[in-house]
Amino acid sequence: MRSSVQPPEWLLQPLKGITVKATFLFGTSDVRVLDIPEPTIVQPTDAVIRTVVACVCGSDLWDYWNSTPEKPIPKGHEVIGVVEAVGASVKKFKVGDLVVVPFVASCGECDFCLRNQQTSCRKIAFFGHDGGGACQAEFVRIPNADGTFVKLPVAENDSHMASLLTLSDVLGTGYHAAKTADVQPGETVVVIGDGAVGLSAVIGAKKLGAEKIILMSRHESRAILGREYGATHVIAERDEAAVAAVKELTSGDGADKVLEAVGTQQAIDGAIAMVRSYGTIGRVGAAQYPNVPMDFMTVMRNITMTGGVAPVRAYIETLMPDILSDKINPGKMFDLEVGLDDIAAGYEAMATRKAIKTLVRP
Amino acid sequence: MRSSVQPPEWLLQPLKGITVKATFLFGTSDVRVLDIPEPTIVQPTDAVIRTVVACVCGSDLWDYWNSTPEKPIPKGHEVIGVVEAVGASVKKFKVGDLVVVPFVASCGECDFCLRNQQTSCRKIAFFGHDGGGACQAEFVRIPNADGTFVKLPVAENDSHMASLLTLSDVLGTGYHAAKTADVQPGETVVVIGDGAVGLSAVIGAKKLGAEKIILMSRHESRAILGREYGATHVIAERDEAAVAAVKELTSGDGADKVLEAVGTQQAIDGAIAMVRSYGTIGRVGAAQYPNVPMDFMTVMRNITMTGGVAPVRAYIETLMPDILSDKINPGKMFDLEVGLDDIAAGYEAMATRKAIKTLVRP
Repeated sequence: MRSSVQPPEWLLQPLKGITVKATFLFGTSDVRVLDIPEPTIVQPTDAVIRTVVACVCGSDLWDYWNSTPEKPIPKGHEVIGVVEAVGASVKKFKVGDLVVVPFVASCGECDFCLRNQQTSCRKIAFFGHDGGGACQAEFVRIPNADGTFVKLPVAENDSHMASLLTLSDVLGTGYHAAKTADVQPGETVVVIGDGAVGLSAVIGAKKLGAEKIILMSRHESRAILGREYGATHVIAERDEAAVAAVKELTSGDGADKVLEAVGTQQAIDGAIAMVRSYGTIGRVGAAQYPNVPMDFMTVMRNITMTGGVAPVRAYIETLMPDILSDKINPGKMFDLEVGLDDIAAGYEAMATRKAIKTLVRP
Repeated sequence: MRSSVQPPEWLLQPLKGITVKATFLFGTSDVRVLDIPEPTIVQPTDAVIRTVVACVCGSDLWDYWNSTPEKPIPKGHEVIGVVEAVGASVKKFKVGDLVVVPFVASCGECDFCLRNQQTSCRKIAFFGHDGGGACQAEFVRIPNADGTFVKLPVAENDSHMASLLTLSDVLGTGYHAAKTADVQPGETVVVIGDGAVGLSAVIGAKKLGAEKIILMSRHESRAILGREYGATHVIAERDEAAVAAVKELTSGDGADKVLEAVGTQQAIDGAIAMVRSYGTIGRVGAAQYPNVPMDFMTVMRNITMTGGVAPVRAYIETLMPDILSDKINPGKMFDLEVGLDDIAAGYEAMATRKAIKTLVRP
């Protein structure tokens, strides 16, 4: 299905100089790769990187499923690349460095950044939303390079590249759910969501010492990976049956912590029903609902709701060693790999749940 | 206004032996003091106390304002008393001990109690809800005495008695808001609610080291007390004007923590609007709403909602020294004192906001 959206205005200009490929969403289920002018330094704090690996995020599917944008949307916010150019004030990185890029750019110096709350950085910037192409592209301009990039101590053909790419979003997002819910050694943790973020939440819960990790999944390949990552139990039931199954595994009490990685009303309702009194829900699912049913009963039970969009920059140094030492292998979540020209098929596979997550090598 | 509710069945029986006075709610605005049989030991873990001081709670007003009970409701859950009798298995207390009683009885031994989560105790018990009179009475039977009571190291005519009584509920409830919201030294804290719990939340925020404490109040006497307890700013505005005032005091960011001690939709909406990104709302207001508006934007801002009914038993040992050393004087919240026979007037004064909190000396 092709929408009637017009190409960006600058695409109608004669392109001068070098062009590069970049991915845009034109409308529902309509992903196209276009030739755009090569990104260049705009601000002195910018860097331009050549993409080594990028990928498609579950959140990329929101507008893929239902979108009539006024202008094509540049896609992709997860990337590892080699620095090709730096602005005059970039001090920490140089041309040739291999870097992983968290999904929001942050200054690294403001009060929010110093508290490791980079998603509320006072100079927060998103890449690719200026019409110049985002990370599903051959080259990308990244703002605030010094505060945003983390250098990778490996070569770009290193075997850990897929796992390292998850540091840019899903691994840190899943870890945020566990960290913000303050998962403690020995606890019982429910993970709602068997996508890449949910599976990463399993990894996060295990890293923090959870003893019993109960993954909600009805997809065999995801459940298998979930068990490999640390899930001790997998529940295929939904709604009341799922709550009953969790209660049965927790002596009727519910779980100490519930990590909610979906964002639907069903997921948040289930989280509240599955959590123990005085328990905590760490939510990283992007809420598709206006309200959380935290009524008088949740007051009586002292339920805590926490979490949100993950400051993944804060977690990269913590999680990277586990990847490089082969303690964890989040890269296995990429069960489909495509070139940039075939990225539409990569979206399609994720949208139909045929793939957990699609890796893109330009 | 007198309702048509019938007296409890046992009151229609000829009373034998000793009778004591106890307070019951018969219907909206209809509080009566009745003669009931003297409470006696029922379970071996029980104790019976003679009331030294009791009081009326803001939460006692909920059914006072609007209630058509099938049978009269015994009232009162805050009390200091002298032990008059103990069951066979009570080991830690003896006749003559002066004790403060948290508003729920807990065993002190289960996993919830050991985590200081006594309001979810596996043997949780409420006193006075068996028709035998509650704490606004001359004598009260308390279950699980060993797990519930805290001995007071003073005589019953000690000058701190009113302040010590607040340990049974409001002081610990306000402190719970601050504690569960993890108020840190130097932080900015908003307190929504200028009743006894809100004022106690001010005390709690100050104890935990908050630097700026902004109290929402439009009642001069409450604002004065709030300032005495540690409020650095008082905001009389409501709704959007109140949010704007908080933003102005916080460089536009909102407060690190918001302590919500009201429980209305307006209060919880305000709390979300007033809290900083990555901030926490500690709520102890008994939610009168079904849903909390924690939508996509609160996910983006990483707002935490925590709190609930306070495990005040957990805080008594922490807070009592501040009272006995005159560091805090929460007893000043009692701006009306009545005898048991005049307790209806004590309810009326609180219901019309003429009194913050009514002390009752039988």
